[in-house]
Amino acid sequence: MFKDATINEINEVMQQSWTAFHIYRKMSLKQRADFMRAIAIELEACGDELIQTAMRETNLPEARMRNERGRTIFQLNSYADACEKGEWLEARIDTAIPDKNPPKPDIRKMLVPLGPVVVFGSSNFPFAYSTAGGDTACAFAAGCPVIIKAHPAHPQTSETVGNAILKAADNCKMPKGIFAHVHGASFEVGKSLVMHPLTKAVGFTGSFIGGKQLFDWANQRKEPIPVFSEMGSINPVFLLPEKLKQSPADIAKMYAGSITLGVGQFCTNPGLLISVDSDELKTFVHELGNVIQQTATGLMLHPGIAKAYKEKRGNALIQKDVQLVAESQTQVKENEGVPTIATASGQAFLNNPVLHQEVFGPYSLVIRCKDMNEMTEVAKHLEGQLTCTLMATEDDIKNNDELVEAVKNICGRFILNGVPTGVEVCLSMHHGGPFPATTDSRFTSVGADGIKRFARPIAFQNWPNDLLPDELKDENPLKIWRTVNNEMNHD
Amino acid sequence: MFKDATINEINEVMQQSWTAFHIYRKMSLKQRADFMRAIAIELEACGDELIQTAMRETNLPEARMRNERGRTIFQLNSYADACEKGEWLEARIDTAIPDKNPPKPDIRKMLVPLGPVVVFGSSNFPFAYSTAGGDTACAFAAGCPVIIKAHPAHPQTSETVGNAILKAADNCKMPKGIFAHVHGASFEVGKSLVMHPLTKAVGFTGSFIGGKQLFDWANQRKEPIPVFSEMGSINPVFLLPEKLKQSPADIAKMYAGSITLGVGQFCTNPGLLISVDSDELKTFVHELGNVIQQTATGLMLHPGIAKAYKEKRGNALIQKDVQLVAESQTQVKENEGVPTIATASGQAFLNNPVLHQEVFGPYSLVIRCKDMNEMTEVAKHLEGQLTCTLMATEDDIKNNDELVEAVKNICGRFILNGVPTGVEVCLSMHHGGPFPATTDSRFTSVGADGIKRFARPIAFQNWPNDLLPDELKDENPLKIWRTVNNEMNHD
Repeated sequence: MFKDATINEINEVMQQSWTAFHIYRKMSLKQRADFMRAIAIELEACGDELIQTAMRETNLPEARMRNERGRTIFQLNSYADACEKGEWLEARIDTAIPDKNPPKPDIRKMLVPLGPVVVFGSSNFPFAYSTAGGDTACAFAAGCPVIIKAHPAHPQTSETVGNAILKAADNCKMPKGIFAHVHGASFEVGKSLVMHPLTKAVGFTGSFIGGKQLFDWANQRKEPIPVFSEMGSINPVFLLPEKLKQSPADIAKMYAGSITLGVGQFCTNPGLLISVDSDELKTFVHELGNVIQQTATGLMLHPGIAKAYKEKRGNALIQKDVQLVAESQTQVKENEGVPTIATASGQAFLNNPVLHQEVFGPYSLVIRCKDMNEMTEVAKHLEGQLTCTLMATEDDIKNNDELVEAVKNICGRFILNGVPTGVEVCLSMHHGGPFPATTDSRFTSVGADGIKRFARPIAFQNWPNDLLPDELKDENPLKIWRTVNNEMNHD
Repeated sequence: MFKDATINEINEVMQQSWTAFHIYRKMSLKQRADFMRAIAIELEACGDELIQTAMRETNLPEARMRNERGRTIFQLNSYADACEKGEWLEARIDTAIPDKNPPKPDIRKMLVPLGPVVVFGSSNFPFAYSTAGGDTACAFAAGCPVIIKAHPAHPQTSETVGNAILKAADNCKMPKGIFAHVHGASFEVGKSLVMHPLTKAVGFTGSFIGGKQLFDWANQRKEPIPVFSEMGSINPVFLLPEKLKQSPADIAKMYAGSITLGVGQFCTNPGLLISVDSDELKTFVHELGNVIQQTATGLMLHPGIAKAYKEKRGNALIQKDVQLVAESQTQVKENEGVPTIATASGQAFLNNPVLHQEVFGPYSLVIRCKDMNEMTEVAKHLEGQLTCTLMATEDDIKNNDELVEAVKNICGRFILNGVPTGVEVCLSMHHGGPFPATTDSRFTSVGADGIKRFARPIAFQNWPNDLLPDELKDENPLKIWRTVNNEMNHD
């Protein structure tokens, strides 16, 4: 249906992107923002047909698709606002001190775009983390052209969204090459894009194997480039004793919902629930199992993901000292994911690295620790995570400082008394985390701070006011926040 | 004299550093800043003896060593001020909107430290980019313990500065392991430190080969870690026609000084001067040659650097179509660097990658382009640089937009009508640049923004005010600048 791009096509796309870069990076923040808003409008204008296409290609329900498109539009508009506001530029000015010895020159710094950014569409968010998703919006805000490698599971959705972007680019008189859409079911296409000398950064959301491979390729280049891969995460949840005692059944219900939301196909899906063995934990596990048994199986995104879930779930359940607690009682149809809860002891978890691996889908493992010390040990042995959650009272927190600190040290987002699913799009969001959650814990892929992934500082020394970019001129024509001689202001 | 650390010693150091990390990262910004200021005091207290030691080990003159210590003390104090001021934390708050559908939770984000940072001392800055230098100051400000790998060319200087840090740590009741000093002439020590699982980031200033090797090791780890290597740069200078016509001899004198400053041993040394062939250029080259001939040879930092300079200079001069213009007429003594100017055509430069390589020392190559187009081609073919400089009038700049944009795209600092040597320590400084100038163009190694190399964001979701870090509490007890519901304030 859609042919993989050839090497020649990729070369041509990258050359056009490089040419566009030199025009686009000189465009004003307002021009970039207007372009992003125009994409949002075109995305809306795709109407029901796009929703139907995405539903057909991803098996995701209509309400979800409508919400996700709304979220994508919100991302484009809110990152456009942030782009124009210019706080992300980190503008800094130190004025000259001519009578210092030696004289201090005038120096002014701001962020500038890296160059063409290759974005890999994700399988689980056909809109919000794909063609016109967060990575694309951030790259455009930063001043970078974007080359999309469409996810092969939803090529038509991607193509349609890509055409919407091209239409917006046309309306806004953007340079040819500002955006390109590339199909590629084979890994060769992805590799060629990442290894191309004119590619200057990469954004990815998906599996650990995929994201790590892109990172390795990028670092093997003659000129290594930054790769922001947002990869797997098991999103551990720590159920502390006092809190669990208060309402084990309510917490179980809340978590059954979070574990099975969207057939468990969220990167923030809670795959690990950790607690101390107790009567309350037994109640919790019992209730959780009950709800899971009653939760229907669901069609997964595509046959490949359904197959992987079946295999990984199967492999998890045959590990030594792992017991099945409950699974959905619905009869399983083809390509469906079965909601499943298993359990193991703290010791089993500490001894078996397989239990630390993500099982992408509606699966969660309950770890029964013998005491709080063992629970703290488990926390200390966990890998980097997008999120960690505490279900805890204030006393639980105050009495378990070592555990809390250990958890804080491994996660990007630290949730108290909630569920990790649901990633709010706002400036304070951090969607990232220590490796292997991402390939660079210092950046986020959600929220306008994600723009900084695709930009670098440049300092201008001794330039006259009229030759400086507007962002750095004395009179601050854009009225952006800047640090002038160490003081923040926007006058 | 100083023995290389053994693997066992490195393990022990890293374990202590890890333990210290969990205490230090909870210390307040003020405690960190006070510790940094205490180091500055101890560094001053080392008195003349430290200056004499550094002079003996580096062959650098007394005035330079005193200035460099002064600069190092200034870095410690000014980064301490920045640490306490907290703007680098990028604190963001979005308050809850309970009646949104779904409800928006309260989310608050700030930067937290990565963990133990290994810093490699540089050869050319025994104080400012070594043991208590910029990387160390930034890591301490971020909340990270530091492990120094002393540069084998000035081990006693490093040891003395290391003891000053330990004394300050003791005075400030810092945890054992907050700082460790490791000797290692063999590359095995460096490798063990970078590969150690408890190392979480690396700072390096030095050669391309060294810095790239650390980057590669770090990326080959099971858990890759960020490496900020500041590596080679030839710091191209573009002499534009109108400006050159105005004062070729003055520019020549200014550049002769910059090229030979500190026997050319600065990472911002101008190694490439590019212009269009003309009578003015002939005058410039003639004058430059005159001053260079009269400039004395100078003792280089250590025999290894002197040997490398001799070899690389020799190799540069035997390249096809490269002509020697002038060299110092002083009789050369052992381990001295000979100030040297050579020249080649634009075409020769475009054809020969060897001419793009850094010759670390008082060497500079003048490129004679046949016209502005060729000069622009040269700019487009240059690798990433710490600095680029234009010697230009406003008209030169306005008439050569393509050249100016090409230059801007490859450098970290863009100087107009000045020299690249001299790196001001201030917030607006960017000391970094696209690869191969550094391994990550998004960060600086000079100025308080360098703190961000060693920190990552964490978002707290749904935490009650009294359990949040002070930096994120409603009442803003530290009075730091924060973005609250998208508005900057510090109330």
